[in-house]
Parts: sequence; structure tokens; C-alpha cells
Amino acid sequence: MAAAMKKRLLQSAAFSPKFFSTTASRVLRTGDTLRQTRVFSCEDILRYSEVSHDSNPLHFDPEVARGSGFEDRVVHGMLVAALFPWIISSNFPGAIYASQSLHFKMPVYIGEEIIGEVVATSVREHKNKYIAKFATKCFKKKGDLLVIDGEATAILPSICQQQ
Amino acid sequence: MAAAMKKRLLQSAAFSPKFFSTTASRVLRTGDTLRQTRVFSCEDILRYSEVSHDSNPLHFDPEVARGSGFEDRVVHGMLVAALFPWIISSNFPGAIYASQSLHFKMPVYIGEEIIGEVVATSVREHKNKYIAKFATKCFKKKGDLLVIDGEATAILPSICQQQ
Repeated sequence: MAAAMKKRLLQSAAFSPKFFSTTASRVLRTGDTLRQTRVFSCEDILRYSEVSHDSNPLHFDPEVARGSGFEDRVVHGMLVAALFPWIISSNFPGAIYASQSLHFKMPVYIGEEIIGEVVATSVREHKNKYIAKFATKCFKKKGDLLVIDGEATAILPSICQQQ
Repeated sequence: MAAAMKKRLLQSAAFSPKFFSTTASRVLRTGDTLRQTRVFSCEDILRYSEVSHDSNPLHFDPEVARGSGFEDRVVHGMLVAALFPWIISSNFPGAIYASQSLHFKMPVYIGEEIIGEVVATSVREHKNKYIAKFATKCFKKKGDLLVIDGEATAILPSICQQQ
């Protein structure tokens, strides 16, 4: 089953599974910043609604969204926030998520370029692993507007970045 | 586009979009508890990996997962946490998520029955809407074990539950 899933993931054109690289390039230090950019599509919203079961009409009914004060339907906040574990786990495969706080500051609309940013605020060794804390933010590239603010803690098997 | 998306969502056998009901049954009060149960499948993990781009091998490679101290591959924590906005938005369509904190206490494995629980800890009116705070927890049904602990804040257009 795992082999079949890997094959399907590799076949997906939607993303590059960086963890298949085995080249360690550099070691994570406090203050290091990792970023990833993404643009969310209508199809992303639909697929996320299906897998999360979150069918809030704000996400696919423009009239409801406008009636709530938005310009158009909005991307699920938890889908935008998924940028953080993506960034962390693509740099540190096998990372275990321990906590995440999320403050949703602004709506994200379909087609907007969103930058996920993860800054290491502390890194310490613990029982042959590493406990890393990160400041986690998302910005709109246009206008550099803060979309999500928060913090995450992850247990990393290694602090050698795989990218 | 919105009509087509609605149609596809309605056609999906995976979930019941409760917000299409217009029957208001009761009003949210502090102390009220809302629950929803879900079992996550291999397919859910794959679909979530595709839409979130989070291809951490912990989620689909049993060997990596066991090497990290787990019994088997684990469900993405952020997918399990998506139970909270699902519960809130299915009861209060049009709810706007303002914040969510998440503490991941235990791994969730494929096939386990997970109960999402949302308890209203405060509800107050603000500019013709309602600001509601919730204690948000997930449990394993078997053993009643705490999986995720946290809090959420949402802006509700109404406190009449749609279910």
C-alpha cells in the first residue's frame, strides 16, 4: 500500500516530494527562515472541502462570501495554514508536529500569491532528536499583508535540511 | 462556478453538507457541546497530501513511521484538526474562523474512530454578529484518549444552529 501511495504521489504534478532527496545541505539554526509560495485555485478549495468535509458556503458561494463582507469566496484558513507543516516537513522529513497556533488576520482569495514563512526561534537537542520552535506567518505577496500569524513546535529527527 | 461546485459537493458521498438545511433548531449558549465523529482512511491521507502538498513520509511510509516510534503511518494532524471548523461551520454556516490553537497529544492511525468535540466557552454579540470561543478537543473513541487539545474563536452570523 505504501509503495502504491508513493507512486501516486510521485505521479502527481501538483507538488514535488522533496523528501526523496537525500542531500543534506545545511543545519538549522535559530533565526533561519524557510519560505514557500503557493497560489490556491478553485479546484484546491473543492478538493480540500471534500477531504476535510468543511463545506462552509464562504468557500464556494460568492454571494454568501460578499454578504459576509468579503470580496469573493475565501480559501479555507486551515488549508492556507497547511503551508507551515508542508514547509517544515519538506525541509525536515519525518518531523512530528507538536503544536500550532493560528491567528487568521485577513482572507485569502483564489489566485492570490501567498508566501508561507517559518522562522526558527529555538532549536534544542532532546534524546537524539531536536525540538524546534518556529514563528509561522503567511503573507500576501502583493502588498506584503499579514494573513496568518502564529507559532509551531515540531520534533525533528535531524536538523540537516533536505532541500 | 459556484453552482457547479455546489453540485459536485452535493454529489459527493463523503459527507452531508448540513448548511443546505434551513431549519434553525436551537440557539448556542455557553457550555453547549457539539460533536462529530470521523474515521480517516488511506485515501483521506493521500487526498490531503495532494491538496496540502504535505508529503511527510510519516503519513504514508510505515517503515519511517515505525522508525519514529509510531505503530504505523499517522494521519496528518492538521487534517484531524479540520474536524473543528467542520463542526463549527456545519452548525453555523458562514462562520468566520479567527483563531485556532492546537496541541497534538497522540498520533491518529488509519481506521481509528475519532470524536471531535467543540464546547462553547463564551458567546457574545458584536455588531449584529456573534463572537464565540470554543474549547476544541479530539478523542479516540476507543479508550477515550485525548488526541488534540486547543481553542478556537469564530465570528458567527447567527447563533441559531442549522442541524
